[in-house]
Amino acid sequence: MPRVLSKELKNHIGKKVELWGRLYSLRELSNELAFVNIQDRSGLVQFVFEGIKIDAKVGSIIKASGVVKKEERAAMGVEVMGESIEIIESPKEELPFDISKKTLKVELSTLLDHRPLTIRHETIRSIFNVYDTVLNAYNEVMRDMDFKEIKTPKTSGAASEGGANFFTLEYFDKKAYLTQSPQLYKQICVGAFERVFEIGPAFRAERHFTSRHVNEYISLDAEFGFIKGYEDIMEMLTKVIKHIFKKIEEKNQKDLELYKAELPKIPEKIPAIKLQEMKKIIKEKYGYEMSKDTDIDPQGEVYAGQYAKEKFNSDFIFLTHYPKRKRPFYTMLDDENPEETKSFDLLYKGIEISTGSQRIHNYDNLIKSMKDFKVNPADFEHYLHAFKYAMPPHGGWGMGSERIVYKLLNLGSVKEAVLFPRDVKRLHP
Amino acid sequence: MPRVLSKELKNHIGKKVELWGRLYSLRELSNELAFVNIQDRSGLVQFVFEGIKIDAKVGSIIKASGVVKKEERAAMGVEVMGESIEIIESPKEELPFDISKKTLKVELSTLLDHRPLTIRHETIRSIFNVYDTVLNAYNEVMRDMDFKEIKTPKTSGAASEGGANFFTLEYFDKKAYLTQSPQLYKQICVGAFERVFEIGPAFRAERHFTSRHVNEYISLDAEFGFIKGYEDIMEMLTKVIKHIFKKIEEKNQKDLELYKAELPKIPEKIPAIKLQEMKKIIKEKYGYEMSKDTDIDPQGEVYAGQYAKEKFNSDFIFLTHYPKRKRPFYTMLDDENPEETKSFDLLYKGIEISTGSQRIHNYDNLIKSMKDFKVNPADFEHYLHAFKYAMPPHGGWGMGSERIVYKLLNLGSVKEAVLFPRDVKRLHP
Repeated sequence: MPRVLSKELKNHIGKKVELWGRLYSLRELSNELAFVNIQDRSGLVQFVFEGIKIDAKVGSIIKASGVVKKEERAAMGVEVMGESIEIIESPKEELPFDISKKTLKVELSTLLDHRPLTIRHETIRSIFNVYDTVLNAYNEVMRDMDFKEIKTPKTSGAASEGGANFFTLEYFDKKAYLTQSPQLYKQICVGAFERVFEIGPAFRAERHFTSRHVNEYISLDAEFGFIKGYEDIMEMLTKVIKHIFKKIEEKNQKDLELYKAELPKIPEKIPAIKLQEMKKIIKEKYGYEMSKDTDIDPQGEVYAGQYAKEKFNSDFIFLTHYPKRKRPFYTMLDDENPEETKSFDLLYKGIEISTGSQRIHNYDNLIKSMKDFKVNPADFEHYLHAFKYAMPPHGGWGMGSERIVYKLLNLGSVKEAVLFPRDVKRLHP
Repeated sequence: MPRVLSKELKNHIGKKVELWGRLYSLRELSNELAFVNIQDRSGLVQFVFEGIKIDAKVGSIIKASGVVKKEERAAMGVEVMGESIEIIESPKEELPFDISKKTLKVELSTLLDHRPLTIRHETIRSIFNVYDTVLNAYNEVMRDMDFKEIKTPKTSGAASEGGANFFTLEYFDKKAYLTQSPQLYKQICVGAFERVFEIGPAFRAERHFTSRHVNEYISLDAEFGFIKGYEDIMEMLTKVIKHIFKKIEEKNQKDLELYKAELPKIPEKIPAIKLQEMKKIIKEKYGYEMSKDTDIDPQGEVYAGQYAKEKFNSDFIFLTHYPKRKRPFYTMLDDENPEETKSFDLLYKGIEISTGSQRIHNYDNLIKSMKDFKVNPADFEHYLHAFKYAMPPHGGWGMGSERIVYKLLNLGSVKEAVLFPRDVKRLHP
């Protein structure tokens, strides 16, 4: 009998079907009556077995047949009157914890240590259903806007943007680094393709122990030329954000419901406030003062998010004009106040999900800025080549893909939105 | 005046337009007449300036205006009668070599050393136009077949598949490895999502000095459950290959023409021949004998490709049943001959572009195979967890994305199909 997916069952009411999947949960009311949830790649469906002894362990890989019945109360709108169940593969042991419960109540460390099992839980699968949509939506919207997809190297002979937060590598007889971002490469590519995007890993050797950091993440990057100013970049990023959530709305209703997650409010134009002004507002409105030396701290970001919600009914806010010393050497300075930059962070529910700026495109200005930042131009020979031979005005962003899902689903940690997260202590599984 | 892209000019005949891009080449016949090629992200178009002195260097970023004229002989079907040219950014120096010629005749090392410049050449851009299509086509076809996109870590506490060909990394106070493939992770994910694919970097610390190897490449991976045998995998991969080339046919005609590249012949069913049989055929037909110990060598692959073309009019051929000792421990053995495996390589024009197999899905068999391969199960604790708690029959492939473009365009080296390639000696740019 050909296989039918659980999501297709509603088209087979009254017919006999065969499902392939996992025996997700088993409730035997008597020897005469058993309720079995079967999970396949499209979801979960209940089989009702009457007068048939179920001789299969929870977690088994099975093929089950039965007749589809309409059942309004069921999640799929159907249930299946089971006729047979064939075991393909059985678990060797009892599962170390029950993953058939509606919610998976385990500590974060257990959740991550047992990733091969915990990702089988319906609620955890939902996280990665949403993540899958984020990846594809980013790919779609960037191509719609005529960006070319590039893949740049993750190993490099030079520490990408300077600074100290990179992992070092033995590369044959040389020393190499893992790139912290595709920044320099994507800028070089603007000189050839004008509009480029990349979806790829970024590596940060930062000793963070927070719920919002991992040491390896998937960065959604974009860089493009012929901009008039950093506002063009924020406008483009707004389109991207809108498309991503539109796609999630279309594809992930069931996943959102499991988390009681609400789609964000995104105004036509996301509000943008200068960082210094935001700090003043936070002090006045929430009595929270940050030192002049910090750009903004996590608590400040939370208040900025709260302000955006209260004042603009927006889950997003751009903070702009970060101080020069808080941004890398390639960031373009503001024309009116050269201590500030043409830069922004995008906050979603009070957390930074994206960072961008207009970049310096003039060769002489770039050299000047490097010297000002005590960065040695000789270390950036190839990068500088692109500028020596003329670059258009340009800019772009990097965006943490996992943070979008983390905040949308109100997860406890961004690590829950990564299949196999890496942190200071975690290199397994 | 709003910007028009060169590819849109045919819709603006008789109208005045403004183009933004790069002054790609300049031919001054006299003070009265100059031909200027302007390159933007969509292509190249010729401006004709009469009685206007062009005071801009080749390579400059410019805005140029003029009136569009139909011109059958031109590539875009139009040319522009230039009226003005505004310089946005000039090169600081003469270019180290002329990139305005129709073909870029430089050594491979020059081509790669000067990547920030050479990728600006029209023929080099074409390579990455095709590559962009490959990436998107793979994404499309995998989603069409109901695969979920996953992103797995590239840093790991364990050497992914065993063996010695991995890069080591300082990871805070620990030692880590760069993953050679997402193999173990994607198998784990089959246990949760059934069908998964990944597009991501793979790192191989192999001392190759060939035209077909790089040490970091983008692998197009897939893994899926509930297969009946390795033939299902080859069938699925055939669909993928067909979709990729269909998309290239639709989108990259201009790029193919630049390389006089022909789309491959792909039969309805790609021929599949057992490796040992292929070696016999190669010996008989081409007089080339390989030792029993090698599976197949590069020259053998070339002959296999030649045979596929002569016998089946196919640019592709599957070689199957690789010897057990030539495949990793997780490969399923053939039922009839346990010295052979349920595995395959896919050759395109006589070069391996993909490797796949059915995997062992039974826990006890997997442990037995590990011991047989002198692999310590304790080193694969998390991976084995997935199997301890039941896995469906499954398999998949890895495919070298860059090799597809390398062979299609008949490039001299796969490195030409990588923006910033990494090899034993090359970590820059």
